[in-house]
Amino acid sequence: MTLPDLDSFLSPRSIAIVGASSSPAKIGAVPVRYLVEHGYDGAIYPINARADQIEGRRAYPSLRAVEAPIDLAVFAIPASSVDAALDDAIAAGVKNIVMFSAGFAEMGKEGEQAQAAFAARAKAAGIRVLGPNCLGFMNVARAVYATFSPVVATGANESGCVGIVSQSGAFGAYAYAMARERGLGLSAWITTGNESDIGVADCIAWMARDPATRVIMAYLEGCKDGRKLRDSLDLAQAAGKPVVVVKVGRTELGALTAASHTAALAGDDAVFDALFRQHGAYRARTIEEFFDVAHGLAVAGLPPNKQVGLLTVSGGVGVMMADEAADAALEVTALPVAAQAMIHARVPLAATHNPVDITGQVTAEPDLLEATARIMLGEAGHGSLLIFLAAFGATPAMRILQQQMAQALRNDFPGRLIIFSTLADTAQQRALEAAGCLSFTDPARAVRVMAAMQFFIRQQERVNRPDAETPWSDAFAAMPAPEDASTAPGPLRRGAHNEADALRTLAAHGIPIVPFHRANSRDDVIAGAQSLGFPVAMKVLSADITHKSDVGGVVLNIHDADEAAAAYARILDAARSFAPNARIDGVLVARMVRGGVECILGARRDPALGVVVMLGSGGVTVELLGDVTFRLAPVDIDQARAMVGELKTARLLQGFRGKPPCDVEALAEAIVRLSRFALTAGDSLESVELNPFVVLPAGQGALALDAVLLTAPPATTNASSPALAPSTSF
Amino acid sequence: MTLPDLDSFLSPRSIAIVGASSSPAKIGAVPVRYLVEHGYDGAIYPINARADQIEGRRAYPSLRAVEAPIDLAVFAIPASSVDAALDDAIAAGVKNIVMFSAGFAEMGKEGEQAQAAFAARAKAAGIRVLGPNCLGFMNVARAVYATFSPVVATGANESGCVGIVSQSGAFGAYAYAMARERGLGLSAWITTGNESDIGVADCIAWMARDPATRVIMAYLEGCKDGRKLRDSLDLAQAAGKPVVVVKVGRTELGALTAASHTAALAGDDAVFDALFRQHGAYRARTIEEFFDVAHGLAVAGLPPNKQVGLLTVSGGVGVMMADEAADAALEVTALPVAAQAMIHARVPLAATHNPVDITGQVTAEPDLLEATARIMLGEAGHGSLLIFLAAFGATPAMRILQQQMAQALRNDFPGRLIIFSTLADTAQQRALEAAGCLSFTDPARAVRVMAAMQFFIRQQERVNRPDAETPWSDAFAAMPAPEDASTAPGPLRRGAHNEADALRTLAAHGIPIVPFHRANSRDDVIAGAQSLGFPVAMKVLSADITHKSDVGGVVLNIHDADEAAAAYARILDAARSFAPNARIDGVLVARMVRGGVECILGARRDPALGVVVMLGSGGVTVELLGDVTFRLAPVDIDQARAMVGELKTARLLQGFRGKPPCDVEALAEAIVRLSRFALTAGDSLESVELNPFVVLPAGQGALALDAVLLTAPPATTNASSPALAPSTSF
Repeated sequence: MTLPDLDSFLSPRSIAIVGASSSPAKIGAVPVRYLVEHGYDGAIYPINARADQIEGRRAYPSLRAVEAPIDLAVFAIPASSVDAALDDAIAAGVKNIVMFSAGFAEMGKEGEQAQAAFAARAKAAGIRVLGPNCLGFMNVARAVYATFSPVVATGANESGCVGIVSQSGAFGAYAYAMARERGLGLSAWITTGNESDIGVADCIAWMARDPATRVIMAYLEGCKDGRKLRDSLDLAQAAGKPVVVVKVGRTELGALTAASHTAALAGDDAVFDALFRQHGAYRARTIEEFFDVAHGLAVAGLPPNKQVGLLTVSGGVGVMMADEAADAALEVTALPVAAQAMIHARVPLAATHNPVDITGQVTAEPDLLEATARIMLGEAGHGSLLIFLAAFGATPAMRILQQQMAQALRNDFPGRLIIFSTLADTAQQRALEAAGCLSFTDPARAVRVMAAMQFFIRQQERVNRPDAETPWSDAFAAMPAPEDASTAPGPLRRGAHNEADALRTLAAHGIPIVPFHRANSRDDVIAGAQSLGFPVAMKVLSADITHKSDVGGVVLNIHDADEAAAAYARILDAARSFAPNARIDGVLVARMVRGGVECILGARRDPALGVVVMLGSGGVTVELLGDVTFRLAPVDIDQARAMVGELKTARLLQGFRGKPPCDVEALAEAIVRLSRFALTAGDSLESVELNPFVVLPAGQGALALDAVLLTAPPATTNASSPALAPSTSF
Repeated sequence: MTLPDLDSFLSPRSIAIVGASSSPAKIGAVPVRYLVEHGYDGAIYPINARADQIEGRRAYPSLRAVEAPIDLAVFAIPASSVDAALDDAIAAGVKNIVMFSAGFAEMGKEGEQAQAAFAARAKAAGIRVLGPNCLGFMNVARAVYATFSPVVATGANESGCVGIVSQSGAFGAYAYAMARERGLGLSAWITTGNESDIGVADCIAWMARDPATRVIMAYLEGCKDGRKLRDSLDLAQAAGKPVVVVKVGRTELGALTAASHTAALAGDDAVFDALFRQHGAYRARTIEEFFDVAHGLAVAGLPPNKQVGLLTVSGGVGVMMADEAADAALEVTALPVAAQAMIHARVPLAATHNPVDITGQVTAEPDLLEATARIMLGEAGHGSLLIFLAAFGATPAMRILQQQMAQALRNDFPGRLIIFSTLADTAQQRALEAAGCLSFTDPARAVRVMAAMQFFIRQQERVNRPDAETPWSDAFAAMPAPEDASTAPGPLRRGAHNEADALRTLAAHGIPIVPFHRANSRDDVIAGAQSLGFPVAMKVLSADITHKSDVGGVVLNIHDADEAAAAYARILDAARSFAPNARIDGVLVARMVRGGVECILGARRDPALGVVVMLGSGGVTVELLGDVTFRLAPVDIDQARAMVGELKTARLLQGFRGKPPCDVEALAEAIVRLSRFALTAGDSLESVELNPFVVLPAGQGALALDAVLLTAPPATTNASSPALAPSTSF
């Protein structure tokens, strides 16, 4: 784990503000004011050559003049001044710099170069940099306000357990204001801007270790270093800190490797989706969901189990809640018969299965509410309870009753998630939150929070299982370094691979392939076919012909030697006439495979995120329905099984309409091996696709009938994605 | 149109309250108090044998004692007293009754009978009834409070343009409170309870004609009379009043006719979905969406076009808005080049395509905001504009600026939908709403409102098109009455139809079928096959065998007379041995059809909603993916085309992967004819399914290869759904 320690950055004992000013309109005035106002207890050094004092603190003409340790220097200066300031910072032994200055990579090529030069100089001097072009950060608990965002001036947030990190300053400021409006206390708030050095992943990793942070909210627009992001999410997961992310920009399918069919189906965003799921981060889709989930986690924590109870005073809204819960695949478990009887004893007309509807009778007997809730949390053991009270819950008496219930139930059933749904004003919401409970006007929002909780519980179960997978970074470490892997599997031979080459390479890595024979003459074709056993299929072998069928390069169902000879002649003729410039390596004779269900398997290097493994359904459905699922390598056997289950057409593999169930285990094993192969190949692999990959009936295995393997030219690869290929940086 | 006139009900000039009381704890006390407090200007007659005065009004011992016209009697009495009260009401010439009393159909069989008896007596006397087991209603503009819901006591709603009708009292009361919290003024509020007489549809129809109502919100749990619901939605649409519905209970697939495969795929809820779409009602899924959409309609009305502009001060949130808008299929149209140049002239770094990002520069130059909005509404002509302001929008100065913008823009661009997204307190929200604009913290909620607006604009376009379809009720009227339709298409022969019968019946109604020959002997089989032309398919003919393939009753690809003779023998043997009790009507010889894309067409009578027409994709996908879409008959050609487009596998019909495009027009025409056939057959039809229905390449038509037709036994049908079959009640 190479994630940096940012403590001196985020909890500095001394802060110098370069560009500090007494003129309130200047951005350099803001952090000094915030630090003083909020009572930062470290040293504050305003840097301004033309002032003696700023905000009552002695001002210094330069960083060098401070002559004391400076943990953090805030650069509230124009881009044109940063180089000189960096000279001073290096001379003064500054450890960290936060750079508000705009005018760098966001401005184009020239700015990008200036940014890179600055970052390189800082790095050489051992200085960490946040920004440029960011709003800075706050460590709320320590009163560190290294930001000029005006949002703080409109009201400071309380100190709390939620850490927010945002690439976007505008979004960060909005999130800060929203947290304040909700009464959601913050531990740290960081905007990363251009990320010349410190990125979102570094901040997540720091928060994972920060004792004040219990819940992490991250907003991303992109990611330059997938490995670091994955490591940081693993750190947070290991620390038991849920991460809620918003990642904007669901790009169109098809921004990827062109020649491969896999690529045409893959989307960056789907890969991000897989990454978050794989590393335990919950991806929220809207700002409201982002905050509802994080707020719920901060207030109530994770419930002890996934079972959900729904309690209502309105039958209709009970159905609505059940609909929502079913859509979210929540476990709405029925109450035990004895528990149902207990409720019926008091409310003869109650529905008691789950949802439990105690009907309008509750208006006459309000104590029914807590009594029923206790049965659901106690006898039924529901980990979460959603209580819909309609307008009835908004009366003053019922507000007090809910507060009392919240305290009593959280006391007697520690850790249970209890959400009320009624109209609640801000005071009522805060009172319930203080007792560890939530309140939403719309029960659908409560169900969404419950669904996120269930996601995190599942992730916990996965990580805590005794036979849990090896952490993915250890799997990398255990792999032979490609450089010294002359005999072990390692980098691929660069250059064109025809189908036979591709299949053999895959077979060498334990991936099952169709028995085949490579032939270059009529006699060889016949001999090969006879040794494989008729019927056979025959295909032209050429790395230059991608769509073999289209040029007449494929003949199926060849039944005897004569047909084989004829097919051989036909294929060579067709290939020569349709693709006169293609290099023909002969033909591939393969055993015909009958039955089974066709899939597509693939793997490719994503420039930012690493090796992406793909499983899609076969035939036209993969393209027609986008029926495809992704994981980042390495994929363990459980993840591979999960991928199979995620296909929209998964039921086809389970024995659909009287067909025998397929050998899903062989398919999952092949996914695992393909993932290993792709990782081992490192940056020599561009993409590989097995299409079709046939899954035979259970016990009979699965095998690739065709394969396309593309390698990457070495030079380009190293330059374009240095951080991603195991051979260069792992 | 048979929808009743409820004016004397909902705008009564005199109200008697049976069970009126001075004791505040009694529900009979509540409506009197509400009426007096809110200044109802009609006559109020408290009915109580033991009181002289109630709430300062003279009390009467009975309805008979009033001796003046009584438009409305409120029954705030137990179920045991309603019969006597009804006697009095009939004697007193009461026109309408609202019945709070519980203890009727919701209690089981006995209550159901009591309710039916009461309803029948009231009907015979010409009295309309709301309830029983309801919370009553309010006509807010006229200060009619015929309700005992305590929600009114906690604060009355303002008079406004939104009508709310709810089957559920608890949901109704909650909706009332939510409207109040949002400052959403109401015209009428009605809960329908057990619907012994007046139902949600009646109330929608009344609101469609009520001048005070501009927007209708309806909450349903079910529907007893699909025709009335459809008529009422058409009325509202014709009146230009958008209807937003919540319908709870998305039931499992398969509550329908058992023997038919179609039925197994149909879901009541999917049919409701189709009904709402078909009749222009927007179905909201959550309570929040229900109110956001209705509120938006009430405040801003429908924008003049579907084009949407997205304006942001944060690039990242701009992407988020674009993602949401793309998911909702909004028309995010690019700005004209000249308009983009105008923005660039002021903000060199702006993104100007759409979303338009005017960047942080706006904090220094706030007037940029209105200038850009004017370009988007003016030069770009966007009908709707969403403006994301991040935290910046929440400062006091920016709040004022937004209010000024709201007024100026709505003044200069009348009818445009303008939604701000920032943090806004209640006062700010009300101020913007007063100017006809909206504000949401989460831009995703704004996009959802815009999507609903787009739905309503599309519906308007459909209805207002010069070649718009005949209103569905006119289509019914134009149809020959089945009773006197001895020669015209009419009711089906009741009883078993084998495949040949079914195909012939469909062909007689203009639905294309495969050329076939029905044969009963070896020679006949051969002759038939020769006249059709080889190759042919052969199937056992028996109304008793549903799955012909499973019993060996189907042989395909018969190439000559010998094969035909052998197939005939084989099929008869197989049928007799696998289904010894089945009645065998010979075999069906049909021409083999090659190519094309297979679909499933079907129609069935839904017990509540009428004739449902289904289109599904062929093969396994219909079941595997639930790839099926519905409409209620009659289906016109445009709706039929729309159905084709709604299939998940629609692209298969459009010429997928080099295949020729299919004859979609022939498919759509067949849907229209099937819909006509099913309507004409009326209650004699249970269900019909054409599977496969093959759509050939464009210009070559489409045809049914197989058909299953189930008729309904006459007696049962008439008893179970009298209101639905054209032959009985249309």
